[in-house]
Parts: sequence; structure tokens; C-alpha cells
Amino acid sequence: MALPKIFHNLLSIEDALQLIEHTVDLKPIGKEEVDLVNSLGRVLSEEVFAPIDSPPFDRSEMDGYAVSASDISGAEDDKPIALKVVGFSEVGKMPIKEIHRNECMRIATGAPLPKGADSVVMVEYTKETGENVYIYHSIVHGENIAQAGSDYVLGDLFLRKGITLSSREIASLSALGFDKVSVYKKPKVGVFSSGNEIVPQGKNLIPGKIYDANGPAICSMISECGGESYFLGILPDTYDRMLDAVIAALGKYDMVLTSGSTSAGRGDVMYEVFDSVGKPGIIIHGLKIKPGKPTIVAVAEGKLLFGLPGFPVSAMMIFTMIVKPVLTRIGGYIGISEKTIPAKMPFKISVGKGKRSLIPVSIIGNGSSYVAYPTPGSSGSVSTLNYSDGFIDIPENIEFLEENEDVKVKLFSDQFTVPDLNIIGSHCPAVELILSLSPTRYTSKIVNLGSLAGWNAIKRKEADIAGTHLLDEGTLQYNLAFLNKFNLKELAVLVKGYKREQGIITLKANPRKICSIEDLLSPEVRIINRNKGSGTRTFLDYMLKAIAKKRKEDFHAMVKRINGYNYEAKTHSAIALAVFQGRADAGIGLRYYAEKYGLGFTALTEEEYDFVILKERLNKPGIEDFIKCLRSKEFQALLPRRFEGYNVTESTGKIMN
Amino acid sequence: MALPKIFHNLLSIEDALQLIEHTVDLKPIGKEEVDLVNSLGRVLSEEVFAPIDSPPFDRSEMDGYAVSASDISGAEDDKPIALKVVGFSEVGKMPIKEIHRNECMRIATGAPLPKGADSVVMVEYTKETGENVYIYHSIVHGENIAQAGSDYVLGDLFLRKGITLSSREIASLSALGFDKVSVYKKPKVGVFSSGNEIVPQGKNLIPGKIYDANGPAICSMISECGGESYFLGILPDTYDRMLDAVIAALGKYDMVLTSGSTSAGRGDVMYEVFDSVGKPGIIIHGLKIKPGKPTIVAVAEGKLLFGLPGFPVSAMMIFTMIVKPVLTRIGGYIGISEKTIPAKMPFKISVGKGKRSLIPVSIIGNGSSYVAYPTPGSSGSVSTLNYSDGFIDIPENIEFLEENEDVKVKLFSDQFTVPDLNIIGSHCPAVELILSLSPTRYTSKIVNLGSLAGWNAIKRKEADIAGTHLLDEGTLQYNLAFLNKFNLKELAVLVKGYKREQGIITLKANPRKICSIEDLLSPEVRIINRNKGSGTRTFLDYMLKAIAKKRKEDFHAMVKRINGYNYEAKTHSAIALAVFQGRADAGIGLRYYAEKYGLGFTALTEEEYDFVILKERLNKPGIEDFIKCLRSKEFQALLPRRFEGYNVTESTGKIMN
Repeated sequence: MALPKIFHNLLSIEDALQLIEHTVDLKPIGKEEVDLVNSLGRVLSEEVFAPIDSPPFDRSEMDGYAVSASDISGAEDDKPIALKVVGFSEVGKMPIKEIHRNECMRIATGAPLPKGADSVVMVEYTKETGENVYIYHSIVHGENIAQAGSDYVLGDLFLRKGITLSSREIASLSALGFDKVSVYKKPKVGVFSSGNEIVPQGKNLIPGKIYDANGPAICSMISECGGESYFLGILPDTYDRMLDAVIAALGKYDMVLTSGSTSAGRGDVMYEVFDSVGKPGIIIHGLKIKPGKPTIVAVAEGKLLFGLPGFPVSAMMIFTMIVKPVLTRIGGYIGISEKTIPAKMPFKISVGKGKRSLIPVSIIGNGSSYVAYPTPGSSGSVSTLNYSDGFIDIPENIEFLEENEDVKVKLFSDQFTVPDLNIIGSHCPAVELILSLSPTRYTSKIVNLGSLAGWNAIKRKEADIAGTHLLDEGTLQYNLAFLNKFNLKELAVLVKGYKREQGIITLKANPRKICSIEDLLSPEVRIINRNKGSGTRTFLDYMLKAIAKKRKEDFHAMVKRINGYNYEAKTHSAIALAVFQGRADAGIGLRYYAEKYGLGFTALTEEEYDFVILKERLNKPGIEDFIKCLRSKEFQALLPRRFEGYNVTESTGKIMN
Repeated sequence: MALPKIFHNLLSIEDALQLIEHTVDLKPIGKEEVDLVNSLGRVLSEEVFAPIDSPPFDRSEMDGYAVSASDISGAEDDKPIALKVVGFSEVGKMPIKEIHRNECMRIATGAPLPKGADSVVMVEYTKETGENVYIYHSIVHGENIAQAGSDYVLGDLFLRKGITLSSREIASLSALGFDKVSVYKKPKVGVFSSGNEIVPQGKNLIPGKIYDANGPAICSMISECGGESYFLGILPDTYDRMLDAVIAALGKYDMVLTSGSTSAGRGDVMYEVFDSVGKPGIIIHGLKIKPGKPTIVAVAEGKLLFGLPGFPVSAMMIFTMIVKPVLTRIGGYIGISEKTIPAKMPFKISVGKGKRSLIPVSIIGNGSSYVAYPTPGSSGSVSTLNYSDGFIDIPENIEFLEENEDVKVKLFSDQFTVPDLNIIGSHCPAVELILSLSPTRYTSKIVNLGSLAGWNAIKRKEADIAGTHLLDEGTLQYNLAFLNKFNLKELAVLVKGYKREQGIITLKANPRKICSIEDLLSPEVRIINRNKGSGTRTFLDYMLKAIAKKRKEDFHAMVKRINGYNYEAKTHSAIALAVFQGRADAGIGLRYYAEKYGLGFTALTEEEYDFVILKERLNKPGIEDFIKCLRSKEFQALLPRRFEGYNVTESTGKIMN
């Protein structure tokens, strides 16, 4: 069916999928027969009917004696009934003898029931003496046997076509005697990356360029949803060569995917190419979803071409939303449900109203359910990619997701597993050192959301461990005071960690002579600040408040004068890098990062970085090990060597409450 | 470390795993380098540190203008600020120009920020005229840019070894420039099946034999947990040839698995073989778990041999409990957590106290959580295999699992998906006909637990559709009366299905002349009955009660006299087969099954088989289609042709409340 071209008319995902379905026949490519042992993950292409009765004969499910139940009616512990043993039914052979009144036959698990028997009494309830056996237990007709055909009867529909074969279907096909199975052919997909900034991995990175993340990612997603992927490289940047490459791919593959070069600011070459490769050309020019607006879909001679957004997380989310359902249909899979897992929100978040949005999340298991932590970072960032298990799809009329609200997470991959340890809170690179010292190694998920979020995750029992460096302005004590403040004394313990030198990071030469917090107030100085809620920000504000008080000035008025007070970075390293690259003259951060970049450092304080741990999980193996490693001599020796400005104290590893 | 041999001393799973760990060094086989694009599912063998800063430069996240935020401070809708446009920063190139006071540069998403700029204002808030652009929105320092190194800084630990690579790790490795990755070698596992009754699939089945389900099932489970499996056939049944085969396999593979031939009733050949192949020989001789007692583990020259139980479901559960954790360790995977999903029990079940047990379950999604339905059938049955998604592990001190109790389900496979349609209740083969007529096809899960369980599953919102044929003895009406009885009028509708002829199934010749319910009371007649809770059982009891009343006899006393009243079968087809095979003279069942086996049939009634459907899901696509197909002309025509004794009525497809 030919449809008019639609340009710059954003479609919803649902409308887009419907339009694709109306334009292209999404039928499987064909069928092939494969050996059952090689059919894992393939899609069944024919209904399977049982070719035999299963079990094929009445079969004993226990080791014992085949009897006629009526012969031992009334048998009890103190009233055994004796039967004559007339033989043994072994597995693999039909017994020749049959049993008559007051007779029985020894029988093994899986062996065929002899004629005349209707039940099996377990060997535990019997005692054989000479040619008789005493039976101390009565049973009902049919007990401990699997009746012939009770499972499947010849001709019963057994498996429906369109299902994906996993080990259990392979087991049951095998049990019914199949050694080969008819499956749909895998759709072959040609994959390009595109964009003038894209360099293939393995090559040198020249300034202004970035590596291609999408090619390998999209190829593996295609494999995971049953397609065969072929990475065809990065598209050349001229119309003619691009067109040639895409036309060549269309000739060889069942579908073509590109990513990048589709956003409005980047020139329209990709549109032109997609629109020129065949009829009807582009059918979808943009999606009404964030991120994913610059998604294009074209059809040429019955084959589909998808142009996905360039940012990897966006590309993976849009792949899941629009390519996956189409590709699995062409692969013959019949389901419509997406792979989602139910989860809850850990805190309230606001989402842009008026636009449907996809929010990447990291999944935490709290024992009885899943919790979906929104991944910090933009869709262009590699860490978002590295921390996200999937994403949630939020309708356009929603403005907030409330704490504990039920959401459904679409997974990026079937490989998702719940980690052994959930560490949520403030970021510290030395946590990795502790983990690496453990003799048994654990999978762990580290979610860096700042100290406060860590405390909250402990309260919600989502974090096993929360790293924190929060200064209590009242007591000038780090962390411990908050156990009371947050009412967590019953639930959690505070395990002392280590000290970290915190100070002012400047260039090595320190041309502006910045040596104290007061110096940051100079109009000549541009600073870079940390994000609100971080321990470092809390510390700086505490120091600035003291200065404001001394100067009898309003704190807010004073910080307004600081150049860059609102220029926020989310990590220690970003502070150091900003100073290194000259984007700021100074920032507050750890000595460790100043040294890493060869920068100047003026110490201000030694802050205390500690761990809040759920009491009920103190004996969990990963956590026991964590504390053991924190207390170890090895850690004590390695910490200051690996991390300048770090040190253990006498309390390191001590439980403080 | 050598340990004394332990015979017939059942171990817990945990003790068994510990003993294995103490006897064998569970370290990876070695490392290899693979292309990143081929690394899906492989286990990372080295820590990965970031080789570059990411992003490598300050990068725009939007299409717009690169500015210095202070230049446009105070800009608003009605108070735009004009800046001079001094150039365009494209993706892939470092801009040569820099911007000065009151200047800006056009910039594309992904392009590097020019010197002098610290933020990007989105194109939506601007208007370019001539060489100037008007900016209608002020921003904070750093807005809409990804700072260099904000993601990862050169040298940051980026991925820990021991994790399994999925598309997102492949994406992020690729984004950091890796084209190759070091992974652990896959452990090679040789797999045998064993047992005198076992015939390879694809061959003819002679009486007393069954097909091998375990070989292909175990091989695919090995693949799914990162091993390389080699099926080596069915073990010959003599000690010498068995020993030769196992020794040959040990020479070639890193581990050997067998299944079957290990239970006490079957001879000890497998023990002897396992104990003779090398030192120290058998280390585990039986597990304290049901099923799984006949599990043996041996070690020969540092390599492990596992002997799993013979029943496929048992073999798969024990594989998951004891082989998988060992195999993944040898594969280099660091996690200890098993893949479980949280679920709830749909009803109370009793489990054998005093023994830890593994119960296979079928998982249903009710929208916000998962529910684990125990799979009916024994561990020897193929249908248990076909319907189970995984199993729950119940400690020995537990006697009951309560309704709604939280449980953890260990999955057999990563392939688990929630089906589009959940159909729970009474079994009817014609339901498959309805499903097959749907133009779009849906994945569905059919859980056959009887009519009553279906009604309950509707109440719990777990079933979308429940098939039912319950006779209300008060009104003599089928099904509809129960909407009131079960208080489901608000929640569900009753959609009329079809009629099915129900009657007495006998041999064709009907030698005992059984033509009425009364005839079943004859001492000469042996019957087979249906299970309690089934519609057919309810019907028979209703008829028998009427006879008892007429005869002024006690119902219970009367049925005690019926031969086989307690001989229960769980399906229609099992009734027919029992008559066909001479295990019973008569049973109550559908004409359809009588005809299928060429048996005699005396009609008693036309029962009504209907569908209870949750109101709130009536518009769900799969359900809309289901009702549409039920009402279709095609179904009306096909039903009586495909299913003898079935017919639609005028009400078929009508919603009755």
C-alpha cells in the first residue's frame, strides 16, 4: 500500500508502528530446519503436535512395588498385608509377566507398570522377606504412577509457532522425540554509523572527534532480539557515496539501520539518501518522543530503513521502542508484550510535561521488589550508558512520578541480573579498592547520587551500603550525627571509613594566588562549584556562611558575587578537569584529583568518608567481606599509596553505634 | 586439598558447593582476546580503565548558540539580548575562532564548544537576523554542555572484570575506543545421558523406552550460562564401556555431566564409574533436597563430574542449583547472586515439611508484580517442563506457603517473557482454535488448574481470561450464577462460549453395557474419575447425589461402593486413554476424546463452557481479538468440524452481565 510521504510531521511511537505495518508486510523471511541442539533462542515456525502419547506407557514414579491398590486396602503400620513378589520391572523393558490377586512386582522409578497393577507403593513402606513383601501402607488407585498419555496424547497441540525456544522447550521437544525443528530464518540487518565526528574504535582520536558507540551496541541488540547483524562501517559523508553504500546494503540485507546525522541542525543528507533509495522513500520523519525526535524511517522496495538518533542511550532506547517490535515480527515471534519488569520509583522526579519521555534507569533489587533509579547524566554520556539497565516510558500528560509509584522498566538486554551489593550515595574512587581486595568477588552496582540520596536509599532498604561525607553544621561532626537526624539508629550502623584531604584546586603555578576561601570572592577569580546535595558543596557553603557572618553580610548576596558559584559540576574529577582546561581558576575538591591532573592544591580540611550499612544485612557475605577488607592491613597500606591525600584512622572499620 | 570420600551422606546444596570449592580450584580456564562486536555474553577478564577523557572535549548537547552565560544574564521573552554570531561550530572539528564579550557561535549537537563560551542556549529561544542573534532566555553557566571528562577521566576504573558483557557495556567500551576486549575462555562441558530406558530423539520408540529429554536441555542450559556444550550421546550400559566413554570425555573437556542412572534402585554402575575415573573420585553422594537426592559429584585430576537426576525437571532444577554456580565461576563470572525474580503465591500450598524442596512454577504477570503458579504434574512429566518458567526453593522448616507470600523464583532461562494473555482455569482444546484464528497472534500462557482456580485467578487479576464449566446445583445453570456467588459482578464479565457433549466413555463394543450413571454403581464396573474441583467431577457428583436421594441412600456410603471412584485422572484425555488401555471400563468425559480414541460414548448432557474476563482488560488488544474470534463465522463453522460434540449457540460471544 503506497502512502503519501510525511515530512516533519512528528508521529507517536504507536502511530509510527502502525504506519510501518501498513506500508510493509512484516512477515518472516522464510523457514529452515535446524538440529534441536542448535535451536536455542530460535523462533518456532510451525505448530508442534505431540507425535506420541506421553508418557508412552503407565510408568512408576517411585522405587517400590507395583500392586493392585485394592489388594492392600487397609494396610497400616501395625497391620501389614503380605503380597507375593512375582518379578521385577526394570526401566527400558516391558514386563512380560502380569500380576494377579495378592501378587505384586518390584519396580524401579521410570519402569513400565505390569498388567494387573494399577499403583505403586513406595519401597519405604515395605519389607521384603523371602518371596513375599509386607506392605505397611494403603494407597489409592493410580498412586505413584504417571498414566500413559496423562501428559500429552498423540495429536495434542504441544507448542505454538512463534515462540522463542529456551532450554525448557528444547527439553520437551526432545522428550517427545524431535531431533530437528523448523524455525524462522533470522532477518539479516546491515548496520551503519554516521556523523562527521565519528571515528571507528581502535583508531586514534583527533580533536573534535568521538568514537562510534552505536555500531557495536546496535549490532548486539539486533543479535539479542533474534536478528543477524552485519556492521558495515561509518557512512562516508557525501551524498553520492552514502547513497551507494546504502543501496548496496539494501541489496544484501533484509533491513538497514543507521544512527546519527539525522538531527535538524546537521544537514539533510541522510534524509535525501533515505528518500532516494527507492519507493516510497521516507515514511516517518521524526517521533513525538524525547529523546528520539530525529528518528527517520524509510521503505524501499518492501525493505525497511531506520535512521536512529546519534547519542548512544537515545539510539538504544529508540531501537527498543521501534526497531525491536518490527524486527521480532519479521523474525516470526508472535508476542506483542515488551520485555518489562515492574519496579517502583525511589523518589519523586519531575519530567517535562507535554512531551512523552524515555528516562534511563538503573535497577536495584531490595529483596522483595525492584526499584528504578533514574540514571544521572545526559543521554550523550557514556556513564549513563554504563549504569542504565533499561528505561521507563512516561506519557506526555504526566508531570511527576511520585516516590514509590509503580513503573515498568523496559530492559536493554536479557543479561540483566540483580547485583550482589548495592552501593548508593557519594562517589569515592577508593570504594573500588575495597571491593578489589575481597577474596570472593561480588557483582556490585554503584549508584553515585550524592550523600543524601545514599541515606535515603538506606532508609528504603535499597542500598546495602551508602558512602557519605556529610558535615553536620551543628556539631561539626561528619556523618554520625545524621543517624539520629534521619532516625536511622535502629535500622543502620555507621562504619567509619577514611579521611580525604579536601581543598582548593588551582593551576600548579596558581597565577591568581588563590590560597583561601576568601580568595574565591575576588572578582578576578572564576570558580567551578559542585552540585547541591553533595558533601563538598555543603562544606563550601558552611565555610562561606562563616565568612558572611564575620563580615556581617547576607550569605545569598555574597555568593551572588562569586564568579561561577552557579557553574556546577557533578564529580570531583570534573572540577579538576575544568581547572586544568582553564574553564575555571579554582574549585573545591580532593587532593587526589588535583595530583592526578598535576594541579596546585591548598588543603582546607580532612573530611571523613564513612559507610552507612543496613543492620539486617551485616551478615550478608558481600558486606561481611567489605567490612573485613576495610579493616585489613592491606587496605591500610594501599590506601595512601594509591590515593594521595587519603588515610585510614584508628577508627577505620569500626561500627560507631 | 584431598578430602575423604563421603558415601550416602546427604549434603545440603550449600555444603555441597563449599565442598566442591574446597576440592577443586574453580578458576577460569584462561583468557582470550575477541573483537568487541563478537563479545556479547562473554565475561570480561581484565579491569578496564578509561583510556581517554570522556567526553574528550566540552561538547554541546543541543542545537543552538555557544555563549558566555554572563553575556545573556537577564535575557527574557520580552527583553532579548543581541549577540554577534562569529561562526559555526560543526560536529567533528575543533572550532578555530573563539568568542569574545557579546559574541556567540552557532553550534550543532555534539560539536565542540569554542573558547570563550561556557554554555549553549537552545535554538528554540533565539532568533537570528543578519549577523546578530536575539536571545530570549538566560541560562546558567555550563547549561546544555557535556563537560570534558565529566563522564570518565583517563585512568578511571570503568568496568570491573568478571561482569558479563551486554549491549550497554559493548556500547560504552566502544565509546571509549576499544575494538577488542579480553574475555575468559568458555569452559567446555561434555554431556552424556544415561539409562536403559533412554532412546535418542529421532529414532523409533520401542515399548518401555522413552526419549532423552536431558541431553539437549542440559546442553542449552550450559550455553545459557556461558559454557560450551558437547553432547556425547547416551552412555552404554556396561561398566567398562561407560568408564571408557567418561575417561575419554574427561581428557577432552573441562567438565563432564551425566543425567539418569543415579537413583538407588537402579544399580550402582554410575557410582562405580565416577569413583574409578581418577582421584579423589566421588565427593558428593546425594543431596538433601527434593527432588535431587540422587545427585552425585566426583572429581578426577582437578576436573568435576556431575551426575544429575534422570527426570528432566529435576535435572534442570539441580543444574540450576549446583552446576550453574560452579560453571559460571569457572567461566570467570564474579557474581554470587542467582538470577531470581520476586513473585507472590496465588494460593496457599502445603509442602512436605522436614525436607527442603524445589517446586516448579509458571509465572504470571498481573501488571504490577509477578505471581508464581505451582505447575501441576509430576517431575517426570513433559507438561511440567513445558509450563514451568523456573522454580522456588523452600527451606525444610516450612510446611506451608501462604496466599500472597513473597517468594523468589529461580528462572530456567533468560528467555523468560511475560505473555500477552493469561488464560487460567479449566482445560479445553478448543481454546487453541480461538487463539489460532486471531489475525495478530499473541503469546499466551494457558494454566490448566480447573474451573475454580480460574475464578480465583480472575479475582486476583492474574487471569485475563478464565475458562469455566461449573454447574450451579441450585439453579442448574452453568457458570453465570458464580459471578454472584464469587462476588465478581463488578470486576468481571461472563462471555458465553460453547456447548460440549459430556457423557460416559466406554469401549466401542461396550461389553459391560454401561449406558447410564446407575450402571457405574455395578460391582462389575471399574471406573476412572476426574479430580476434585474439575467441572466434570462436580457434574458426576451432582448426578450421583440425585440417585442417592432417589434411593434414600447416603451419598458417601454409595460412592464408596463404586470401583475406582477414587482413581483420579487430571485431564479429559487421560480418562479416554484409561478406557482405551483397559485400565477402566468407563469414565465421564467429552465426546471429542471418545471419538479421538475410537471409543463408545453415551451422551448425558451438553455442558456449557464459558469465559470469565476481567472488565478492565476487555479493551486489551489480545482480549478484544479473542472475543472477536469467538464471535466469528469462521469459528462457528470450524468448531463442530474440528471438535466432535462441540457446538456454538445463539449466545456464543455474548456478554451476559
